[in-house]
Amino acid sequence: MTIAATTDRNDVLPTAAMSETAPPRVAIEVVRPVVDQGRFAAKASVAEPVTVVADVFADGHERLAAAATFRQSVTGTEVTVPLVAVGNDRWSAQAVLDEVGPWTFTVVGWIDPWEYWRHSILARHEAGLDISVELGDGLGLLERAGQAGDPVERLRGADVSVALDDNLAATMASWASTLDGLAVSAAYPLHVARARAAHGAWYELFPRSLADGGETANPDTRSHGTLVDLVDRLDYVADLGFQVLYLPPIHPIGLTARKGPENSLVAGPHDPGSPWAIGGSAGGHTAIHPDLGTFGDFDRVVARADELGLEIALDLAFQCAPEHPWVTEHPDWFAHRSDGSIRTAENPPKRYEDIYPIDFTTDDWQALWAELANVVRCWVSHGVRIFRVDNPHTKPFAFWEWMIAEIRSETPDVIFLAEAFTRPRVAERLGKLGFDQSYGYFTWKREAWELTEYFGDMSKRTLDYLRTNVWPNTPDILTDQLQSGGRAMFEARLILASMISANWGVYGPAYELGESAAVRTPGEDYARSEKYEVRHWELTHPDSLAPLMRRLNIIRSHHPALHTDQYRVLHPCDDPGLFCFSKQNHDRSDTVIVIVNVAADMHRSGLVHLNLEALGLEADQPFDVEDLLADATYHWQGSDNYVSLDPHGPIAHILRVVR
Amino acid sequence: MTIAATTDRNDVLPTAAMSETAPPRVAIEVVRPVVDQGRFAAKASVAEPVTVVADVFADGHERLAAAATFRQSVTGTEVTVPLVAVGNDRWSAQAVLDEVGPWTFTVVGWIDPWEYWRHSILARHEAGLDISVELGDGLGLLERAGQAGDPVERLRGADVSVALDDNLAATMASWASTLDGLAVSAAYPLHVARARAAHGAWYELFPRSLADGGETANPDTRSHGTLVDLVDRLDYVADLGFQVLYLPPIHPIGLTARKGPENSLVAGPHDPGSPWAIGGSAGGHTAIHPDLGTFGDFDRVVARADELGLEIALDLAFQCAPEHPWVTEHPDWFAHRSDGSIRTAENPPKRYEDIYPIDFTTDDWQALWAELANVVRCWVSHGVRIFRVDNPHTKPFAFWEWMIAEIRSETPDVIFLAEAFTRPRVAERLGKLGFDQSYGYFTWKREAWELTEYFGDMSKRTLDYLRTNVWPNTPDILTDQLQSGGRAMFEARLILASMISANWGVYGPAYELGESAAVRTPGEDYARSEKYEVRHWELTHPDSLAPLMRRLNIIRSHHPALHTDQYRVLHPCDDPGLFCFSKQNHDRSDTVIVIVNVAADMHRSGLVHLNLEALGLEADQPFDVEDLLADATYHWQGSDNYVSLDPHGPIAHILRVVR
Repeated sequence: MTIAATTDRNDVLPTAAMSETAPPRVAIEVVRPVVDQGRFAAKASVAEPVTVVADVFADGHERLAAAATFRQSVTGTEVTVPLVAVGNDRWSAQAVLDEVGPWTFTVVGWIDPWEYWRHSILARHEAGLDISVELGDGLGLLERAGQAGDPVERLRGADVSVALDDNLAATMASWASTLDGLAVSAAYPLHVARARAAHGAWYELFPRSLADGGETANPDTRSHGTLVDLVDRLDYVADLGFQVLYLPPIHPIGLTARKGPENSLVAGPHDPGSPWAIGGSAGGHTAIHPDLGTFGDFDRVVARADELGLEIALDLAFQCAPEHPWVTEHPDWFAHRSDGSIRTAENPPKRYEDIYPIDFTTDDWQALWAELANVVRCWVSHGVRIFRVDNPHTKPFAFWEWMIAEIRSETPDVIFLAEAFTRPRVAERLGKLGFDQSYGYFTWKREAWELTEYFGDMSKRTLDYLRTNVWPNTPDILTDQLQSGGRAMFEARLILASMISANWGVYGPAYELGESAAVRTPGEDYARSEKYEVRHWELTHPDSLAPLMRRLNIIRSHHPALHTDQYRVLHPCDDPGLFCFSKQNHDRSDTVIVIVNVAADMHRSGLVHLNLEALGLEADQPFDVEDLLADATYHWQGSDNYVSLDPHGPIAHILRVVR
Repeated sequence: MTIAATTDRNDVLPTAAMSETAPPRVAIEVVRPVVDQGRFAAKASVAEPVTVVADVFADGHERLAAAATFRQSVTGTEVTVPLVAVGNDRWSAQAVLDEVGPWTFTVVGWIDPWEYWRHSILARHEAGLDISVELGDGLGLLERAGQAGDPVERLRGADVSVALDDNLAATMASWASTLDGLAVSAAYPLHVARARAAHGAWYELFPRSLADGGETANPDTRSHGTLVDLVDRLDYVADLGFQVLYLPPIHPIGLTARKGPENSLVAGPHDPGSPWAIGGSAGGHTAIHPDLGTFGDFDRVVARADELGLEIALDLAFQCAPEHPWVTEHPDWFAHRSDGSIRTAENPPKRYEDIYPIDFTTDDWQALWAELANVVRCWVSHGVRIFRVDNPHTKPFAFWEWMIAEIRSETPDVIFLAEAFTRPRVAERLGKLGFDQSYGYFTWKREAWELTEYFGDMSKRTLDYLRTNVWPNTPDILTDQLQSGGRAMFEARLILASMISANWGVYGPAYELGESAAVRTPGEDYARSEKYEVRHWELTHPDSLAPLMRRLNIIRSHHPALHTDQYRVLHPCDDPGLFCFSKQNHDRSDTVIVIVNVAADMHRSGLVHLNLEALGLEADQPFDVEDLLADATYHWQGSDNYVSLDPHGPIAHILRVVR
């Protein structure tokens, strides 16, 4: 086999040349958080301190000191924290980084001769051995460090207590860091995002379904909701406790091969089409669908949302309906086949004639990529700071990496959510190259053992670069669990999603109104999907789950433990239908334990085996847990505690540990 | 906290600049074997193929191809192997690298449009759909690739079978690798060692104990063995099946503070002293102890060993007795204290006055390091190619990295064994920076669960950079298991060591003669240790374990499965006193299963639960296992098989799987 283009490799030849200065004796290894050896930035946020970990050690019996220094690459702000030895040559510290943007950090380690001297003289003194040489050695160190006065005098007077002085030791450790031989790790990149990237509750709705009119009206003439209707609906969403309102594409929709109801191939004259078939005579990705309204209306949506503490997230779906302006203006932005036709989306043997994928590898790729970034800039200029990206896994990694860096360099607080329902390696790569969040596979993790596998080792492995935003449903995914599980299942999945992940979202009002009809089974497509028709929702229905949604979001807002996934721990349950996890914040001041009857099919009961060590609880100390859903308090002790949950009773406990 | 010297960091700034050419769409991640991101060379050898693994994937539904290219850094020899997809975007291959020395390798990945075309046209053809556009697309690809004649004619004739032609597909894949967009990983270093680094059986003896004279003679006048005696003893060692004979230091021994028997502080006039207190009037590290003989004698030892297929390994103990020539010639190579004295070895509150550690950080470090390398060169010039390094963890990492690279650049086949009985991170670092082998912690892993932990995940994690050489005893370590366990324990530990590790060693004749007396308990020091006195051993004793040693080494030489630790698998046993593992070679053509009664205290029996998948055995297919110790054959089936082992019967099974 012959492979081209391997000639420019940077061959690593063995170097037997001695360096000019003595190399550092301290080794620094296994630094974290580091993603692919620093090729990508690890994720951090202003919402919680970043924990840095490294193995720092030297030959021999030396005493070491170590620190981590963080530097904001744009402003130059520096933060240095001393690392503390936590055993087996591992060192760790937490650092508060309160400026959004790109940072780098290095770990440094050095030999601290004073620390070894303290240990040495105290050991010999306690053993009753001669310490005259040690006294001289200590004086020598103080002199080299430029110390004078009290400590020097005391040591001259053979006062061993100088070795007990921790302030002096800290001064001497700092001095030692100025000597030759400081070991410095590589500089590793870290992206510090704003708090909303780290935690938030998302709500998705279709603005065109917001008009009054009643569900029973003829769908062909059902009135089309507008952005003005949306302004009115914002109170409802904010009152439910959501922080982000995500809108499917609001752009003009193509007519050619427009899809009809139930994803049918032929649309009737009044069918509105899929919002993801972007582009028409009224414009493309930087235009608003005329039936929704104007940029003025959109600006009012953003302004009112802002008053309510809501952020508007828009959809970025980089694909075109056949009449998108780019198709005629830039035909070379689309791939052509041997018969001259534009290549359509395909999954052999199927083809999708209604959508043209963009050819990101066109010869004109630089102009194309620049124009796509301009789409984002357009909406940024209208106040949008959050984008949900449609199918990013079908576009080149390099495009996203460039585009996200480009936008962030102008507007550091922009957040991107990847709709990467794809293979694990691909989804993880998107997280690495800059997406703040990614939809996870939660939607399909149904059984307790599946949830355990998913939220256990798998999600721990990716913690440094993948923030998961979990959804119990989306307009594309109505799981068979929800189709057949009834109200208890809707409750269970709602509680699971909102409690287990710092970022969660839900597609409503379908969810709170218990919409469970699929167009066909087996299958996950909603019947009468809003993707293809205008719907009307009776928000005031007495069975609405809105009150539970609201309560869950309020619990979230009160509990910092629910604002991070870094300290999530799973706890085994005897009953395979029960699933238990706990969440804590970085200083363990807040602890929430959640137990859900995830089967939601029948009464489930049994012991929950808490990992007390992970929770920082003592086995012999009783503790109270307060149920935040039921307003009850239980008295627990030890790791094993009995739980009973029922589809007709409470389907879950959300327990605050009372300290 | 203020830390100096962090100004020269290579800050990683976000780059929003677009590259000149379109970046590759293929991502390459998680390449193995890679040690610390390529900072250190991974270990390989000519004894077995190296397995390369990488995640290779792209956006979209593209079909990919991938390969690994290896290049010998000195000779330029290149080896390229195609990678094969093994699932979940992971690719793998094995490559035979048959030149010792430094290599680098890169993984390359590229999009293979012909492969996608084959898939596409066949899928549509099978579905009975129109393929006229696909035929045109395929012709276009063949033209671009410069193909003519048969395939082009067939495709023009709408002959879809062109898509089934695997040879054509391979040609088209090679062509695709020449297109723009080839993704190339970093070049990762790999050190290919000779076979002896990968597997071997070591025997250690003290040459001064080889003289005739009888154990009952007065130790004060016991005759001192010589290198001439050693020439005679080589047949014994070779006949036991060992490949390496390791000698403790053979240099002149210091008189100042010389240790007497049992490590006593005062030596009598006839006490020979510890061979590790190196240096006297007759010279230092490049001299031979006059009582042992001359360089001429040493050369005869090496020559005779070579005839017998034995290699001589020498000890490198970089420390000095007070009368070592360097102490007077280079007083600045030793650290001085505030009272002007030379700093001795210490472990507060204790000090060891008999040995001066070398100050590797002396201002004159370059001359010192060069001189230490000259010590190695001296013995290399006398035919030595294997060095056992004493306490490398008390000398700077940078020294070893430099020294090993230096020596290897001159003599690539030199092998270094690290006596790094120290903390895990430190021992692992020594493996990373070039030591071919390291003593492991096997000696103290006694119970089945300890062995499971040690040879399970822990040793898997370090497989790319740490080759463990396991010893049931050393002159410094007589475990309490051996002190009290009797003959059965000696057998069990011998079988374990020789079978579980591709590299093993034993300190004899103390081991085969069952020497079990400690100088004190608790403690691990041999009574009447050869470190401090001349001994005499009755090799012909009827209870000698030499026949078992010989048989084990013969089994090793016959079984390639025992020449590597890469494919070692542990299998659970019901009885906590039983320990089971299997070994295979790289192509699974040889399988050896070993079950040992590691408690060796009483009859142990129960089920062994074989991991059949790891062994490549079918659950429903019976298989024969032949006991290589007992010359018996058993008929086994499925994962669970019954085993019974007794201190008085066979203490272990060594089973060859008959295919």
